[in-house]
Amino acid sequence: MSTQQTQIEAHILADPCANALGARLVELRPGYARYTLAVTAAMLNFHGMTHGGVVFTLGDIAFAAASNSHGQVAVAQNVNITFVQATQAGAQLVAEASEVTLNGPFGLYDIRVTDANTGQLVARSQATVYRKKAWFGGQKGE
Amino acid sequence: MSTQQTQIEAHILADPCANALGARLVELRPGYARYTLAVTAAMLNFHGMTHGGVVFTLGDIAFAAASNSHGQVAVAQNVNITFVQATQAGAQLVAEASEVTLNGPFGLYDIRVTDANTGQLVARSQATVYRKKAWFGGQKGE
Amino acid sequence: MSTQQTQIEAHILADPCANALGARLVELRPGYARYTLAVTAAMLNFHGMTHGGVVFTLGDIAFAAASNSHGQVAVAQNVNITFVQATQAGAQLVAEASEVTLNGPFGLYDIRVTDANTGQLVARSQATVYRKKAWFGGQKGE
Amino acid sequence: MSTQQTQIEAHILADPCANALGARLVELRPGYARYTLAVTAAMLNFHGMTHGGVVFTLGDIAFAAASNSHGQVAVAQNVNITFVQATQAGAQLVAEASEVTLNGPFGLYDIRVTDANTGQLVARSQATVYRKKAWFGGQKGE
Repeated sequence: MSTQQTQIEAHILADPCANALGARLVELRPGYARYTLAVTAAMLNFHGMTHGGVVFTLGDIAFAAASNSHGQVAVAQNVNITFVQATQAGAQLVAEASEVTLNGPFGLYDIRVTDANTGQLVARSQATVYRKKAWFGGQKGE
Repeated sequence: MSTQQTQIEAHILADPCANALGARLVELRPGYARYTLAVTAAMLNFHGMTHGGVVFTLGDIAFAAASNSHGQVAVAQNVNITFVQATQAGAQLVAEASEVTLNGPFGLYDIRVTDANTGQLVARSQATVYRKKAWFGGQKGE
Repeated sequence: MSTQQTQIEAHILADPCANALGARLVELRPGYARYTLAVTAAMLNFHGMTHGGVVFTLGDIAFAAASNSHGQVAVAQNVNITFVQATQAGAQLVAEASEVTLNGPFGLYDIRVTDANTGQLVARSQATVYRKKAWFGGQKGE
Repeated sequence: MSTQQTQIEAHILADPCANALGARLVELRPGYARYTLAVTAAMLNFHGMTHGGVVFTLGDIAFAAASNSHGQVAVAQNVNITFVQATQAGAQLVAEASEVTLNGPFGLYDIRVTDANTGQLVARSQATVYRKKAWFGGQKGE
């Protein structure tokens, strides 16, 4: 891994919200990130299922990592999430975010959250970022 | 407040995720809910701003309360969130969810998260639920 | 109406797609537009209802007018449409697009399509534009 | 092709809106459809680019075909479209809709519109349907 990639990964790993939640980075490469999360009782909603906010947040953590993986500051603009399957405490969730395309200052991503035990799709999102002129991981070509 | 409304509010107030996050219910009535949240350092992302997952989750908590406010079990199907303005630790966020329309088993909601100090819009969502046949708060008309 | 507003309205009224469809501009002011459309047999889908593409297009025509109403070139980035109610041939549809907020190069809009005869909501969208540096109607302040 | 599949395809091919627009069905199989469209001057917006409504409609035609390809009546509930690249008169657009998953009465689809000449992505959507109890092409298992 290059020095630049090491810097980028260190920056992404220092995410306070991801660490407070207990999300664990499994894979990070340009345009792609995968995280896992063990669902606990504190992550449930009043119907006893995993809270939609937790499912979204895990996907959003992967999305932020994938979209910032080039070292350029990318901020979320729009996320459309469809919830497919409910899960419960004890579930192992996996979130994957993949770059679909970059066009000018924008980037489009596909996010999938699945249940590792059953292999079933839990939620899927289509999401866009706006890429700022700032770089946090050393500018491309430096 | 009727016995049924008291039961519904007690059910909604027992949301483990909302309580773990520190979201506070301010107002609940049929088709509408408002919550507040004080943003802490643990809720930030790796750019030092409030994590998109936290903003979404606060809105989702209000959405769940508004859409379940009739006592009928409603589950989120789709949420489209647009992020408008970044906020930082110390911000006081307010989330409001309002019913736009109910049509058959579906319900459509508008969600707004604002910064209480500046009055500025932080994020806005359009969201849908599927209303199940089950009731948790005493069936309408009972 | 100022000369600038007259230029803007003339530009918007020359939309080939809106004119080919038969959409009629009813009201245009900064940040807002309203159009009507009479649904014909050629606008139906294979289930005999108004095609989702027609409902979307009418809303999109109003959205384009509202978001370009300042004279600055605005291009659609994302539109999230929820279909609420089916309509049939002979229906009179009304589309309204309203500016929710402008933030930097972005703009957020609310779009509603209703059935003029019943007053019912047919579809509702949340939509964003990217505002370019180019102006087609004379720059603001000129 | 079975008798049932022939009936389904005939039903889908009789779409008045798709035929009025000039969209051409290229491929149809369970859970998948592909259509093409030649962009004409009447399909442009007031900036001289292909109208967003036309891009959406082509994708929606493919989505309707893919989601109704099993013979069960499916109606669109929500479509989130992200516009990636503008095109002009003379462009050959291709729309593909693919089933991501079916869960209970719901179905989730991925829609891509591309420019056949450049191979570039023009728009991408995530879309859901509600599947009714009615069948138009002979019930599964009959």
